[in-house]
Amino acid sequence: MDNDAPRRPIARAPRGFQDRRAAAVAAERRILAAVGRVCESYGFEAFDSPAFEYADAMGKFLPDADRPNEGVFALRDDDEQWMALRYDLTAPLARFVAENRDALPRPFRRYAFGTVWRDEKPGPGRYREFVQCDADTVGSSRPEADAEIIAMAVEGYAAAGLPREITVMKVNNRKLLNGLLTAAAVADPAQRLAVLRAIDKLDRLGAAGVIALLGEGRKDESGAFTKGARLAAPAIDSVMAFLGAARHGRSETLDRLAEVIGPSPEGEEGLAELSRIGATLTALGIGEDQARFDPAVVRGLEYYTGAVFEAELVSAEPEASRFGSIGGGGRYDDLVARFTGERTPATGFSFGVSRLAAALAAGGGAVLAARGPVVVIAFDSARMTEYFAVAGELRRAGFAAEVYLGGSGMKAQMKYADRRLAPAAVILGDDEFAAGTVTVKDLDLGRALAAGASDNRAWREGRPGQSTVPRGDLVAEIRRIIRTAP
Amino acid sequence: MDNDAPRRPIARAPRGFQDRRAAAVAAERRILAAVGRVCESYGFEAFDSPAFEYADAMGKFLPDADRPNEGVFALRDDDEQWMALRYDLTAPLARFVAENRDALPRPFRRYAFGTVWRDEKPGPGRYREFVQCDADTVGSSRPEADAEIIAMAVEGYAAAGLPREITVMKVNNRKLLNGLLTAAAVADPAQRLAVLRAIDKLDRLGAAGVIALLGEGRKDESGAFTKGARLAAPAIDSVMAFLGAARHGRSETLDRLAEVIGPSPEGEEGLAELSRIGATLTALGIGEDQARFDPAVVRGLEYYTGAVFEAELVSAEPEASRFGSIGGGGRYDDLVARFTGERTPATGFSFGVSRLAAALAAGGGAVLAARGPVVVIAFDSARMTEYFAVAGELRRAGFAAEVYLGGSGMKAQMKYADRRLAPAAVILGDDEFAAGTVTVKDLDLGRALAAGASDNRAWREGRPGQSTVPRGDLVAEIRRIIRTAP
Repeated sequence: MDNDAPRRPIARAPRGFQDRRAAAVAAERRILAAVGRVCESYGFEAFDSPAFEYADAMGKFLPDADRPNEGVFALRDDDEQWMALRYDLTAPLARFVAENRDALPRPFRRYAFGTVWRDEKPGPGRYREFVQCDADTVGSSRPEADAEIIAMAVEGYAAAGLPREITVMKVNNRKLLNGLLTAAAVADPAQRLAVLRAIDKLDRLGAAGVIALLGEGRKDESGAFTKGARLAAPAIDSVMAFLGAARHGRSETLDRLAEVIGPSPEGEEGLAELSRIGATLTALGIGEDQARFDPAVVRGLEYYTGAVFEAELVSAEPEASRFGSIGGGGRYDDLVARFTGERTPATGFSFGVSRLAAALAAGGGAVLAARGPVVVIAFDSARMTEYFAVAGELRRAGFAAEVYLGGSGMKAQMKYADRRLAPAAVILGDDEFAAGTVTVKDLDLGRALAAGASDNRAWREGRPGQSTVPRGDLVAEIRRIIRTAP
Repeated sequence: MDNDAPRRPIARAPRGFQDRRAAAVAAERRILAAVGRVCESYGFEAFDSPAFEYADAMGKFLPDADRPNEGVFALRDDDEQWMALRYDLTAPLARFVAENRDALPRPFRRYAFGTVWRDEKPGPGRYREFVQCDADTVGSSRPEADAEIIAMAVEGYAAAGLPREITVMKVNNRKLLNGLLTAAAVADPAQRLAVLRAIDKLDRLGAAGVIALLGEGRKDESGAFTKGARLAAPAIDSVMAFLGAARHGRSETLDRLAEVIGPSPEGEEGLAELSRIGATLTALGIGEDQARFDPAVVRGLEYYTGAVFEAELVSAEPEASRFGSIGGGGRYDDLVARFTGERTPATGFSFGVSRLAAALAAGGGAVLAARGPVVVIAFDSARMTEYFAVAGELRRAGFAAEVYLGGSGMKAQMKYADRRLAPAAVILGDDEFAAGTVTVKDLDLGRALAAGASDNRAWREGRPGQSTVPRGDLVAEIRRIIRTAP
């Protein structure tokens, strides 16, 4: 007798982690396949790195925030070395390139899909595990490399199913603001970082808030005071003119930027780079409506060194606008140098796969989702092999099909088939075997009627809910049902 | 001046973890896509669970070994709960089903791809991270559910590209041996486990070694003594007759098994289940050459409760035979019960994705691998946009194409294109621009000649190494080169 009541574990996924069923998995796979095809057509090769990196090799930057190496899941290996789960796909790339630089083609261009982990406070819609899809070019300082990444990202979003009209890539170059600050005699790195931080809040605080943060500082609603960058008034004016420099047309924006940033070698360099990026985008057929210059784009404060870009949804519809950024990237020339001491130019883009999936779902992309298999009803346990032969026949004809394998009766089996979103159920009872027939139940129709969606159209089109046909006509009958699905 | 020589981290992947480049990634993706298609055609839905599980929820079994919860990567979450990286895909499934049992169709049938981690000693070819692909049916006690999994695995291997002639599924049922031991009055669970352990060593030690381990025990070459199961001589004879019961033909093997296991309810049950598995396999078109009954199959000692199955490569070629097991599974009726207290019948199969990839590579599957993009040579930096327009034109025609983005000269660019396994390089210099032409270098041919592989056949077929054609004929020329690739 088993009477030592065992303490049973509670069945629950860890905090901030999620299970995903067929529709979510399929949506993500479609995105990754589409983006992967685009990357390969641009000559980027697939690459995969381990989940773990040594903590010292992973570095201290998160691309989206300037903060130390917290927020990662780390553990000590049995040889006492600290390992951490990767928090992005760029740090492993930098380590890989540094480790294998003699064996790799230069430039090295790779794309990667992969899970990344961040040990952050979970919340609604905020997970500690998610999938990224990145493309990077390591070993080219040419602005054309940035342009190509931008074009590829634009094509990637389109291939994944986002309408081109609602996706825009905003492009900036760090050197412009640096040049402006040089021209305005703001040399202190801490002060420059404070300027970047202030600009980064433009969306949230508006121009007045940014002006306060560029100057003495700002008190928020809670009364907390944020120290400002303490720029002089003319420098503040320059920065605000810079932020307002976007015009309709990439060339027009460049002209205006040249006016507002003042003279400096770095500013000239930034303008020249943006100019070549614009020309290359034009050569690749990417117009202003899909990629425009926007001086307000900041991204990863201490991370990027040149061009930066951010993909946004720009739909006028309110439910789309809440998505905002759906990916971004830029030029980061210092990451490989951490290992090698040699500056290695690099540029890349990271698709926000979960956000993209959410955007697609909001845009109706999810309706493509799950369609279950045809379910062969297990009417009589003594005839299971015959049911399996039927399922095999349907599969050979190209349909997903299964035999019900539970122990329940007819009614539960129909409910099961419905839950599986089966298009049809196949019934072979004594009558059917005797007559050499098969009965097929049209479940799509049943669901459509139940949802009140079909307006009886299906009935008029000759799709009654159930039909008995000669056994040899089964495949044709299933094909008819699936083809005329409401 | 930057003269504080920084301590640089060493660029290296953690011990037992590997980076994978395009060919390996592509091989794995092909396998997963093929197996996924087969699973969906059988009505199994895609599913994905997190990398982490709570350690208590993950349980203490590894399917391939009877050992406690060591060998997993674990860490403490900030709420003090222990989390561990999943070591297989079955434990998360059991947790998920227990957590969501009211919301799921019953039976619940899912397949999953995913990375799993084991904190084991790494060695050559032994990694601590690898990809599994599993399919499971939870909530059906029917032997037909086992048969279906077996058939699906057989079809999965074939779809992935393994020739049917060299893949065989060996099927057994734990109830047969249990029945035999009952009939032989061996009731002690520890003794029964020792019998299983002895049988599991048949491949390695041969019949004599197993007989010793079934009896008093065995001293190995190092002098170490392994205690035996201490069966009496007639019981040992029964077990050895059982192990030798395989015949040509599933029915013939069943007949022989019925003779040797002696009378017992559990033995009868095992025979009846295997008989129904055999009939269902036949209905699904899976013959004896692809799935046979083999009493020597053991697998996961304390884990499986009924049918067990193991996929093996059976090639006569010596390099194939070293692969041995390429996947396996069986019926495990106790896993969900850990959470719910209710026995939940389940059966599943796990494809050994890495082993399958290795088997395919050994069988020549890897030659399908990498083909690089067409490389457009960056002849003149002032003409980059024109090169990008060419690359865009090639992509629109369906070819992968890229512009060389490094800063090196012509010779290094050709070397780069060769390293990328580019089929062709496109050259647009001053002469070509002046004449409205384009020069195309056939790099496949160059490689074939260098490898001495083409026997000058390509030359005879009219593929000289380099040709200059009108600019408008570029796409046709690239198509010709790729189509006639050696």
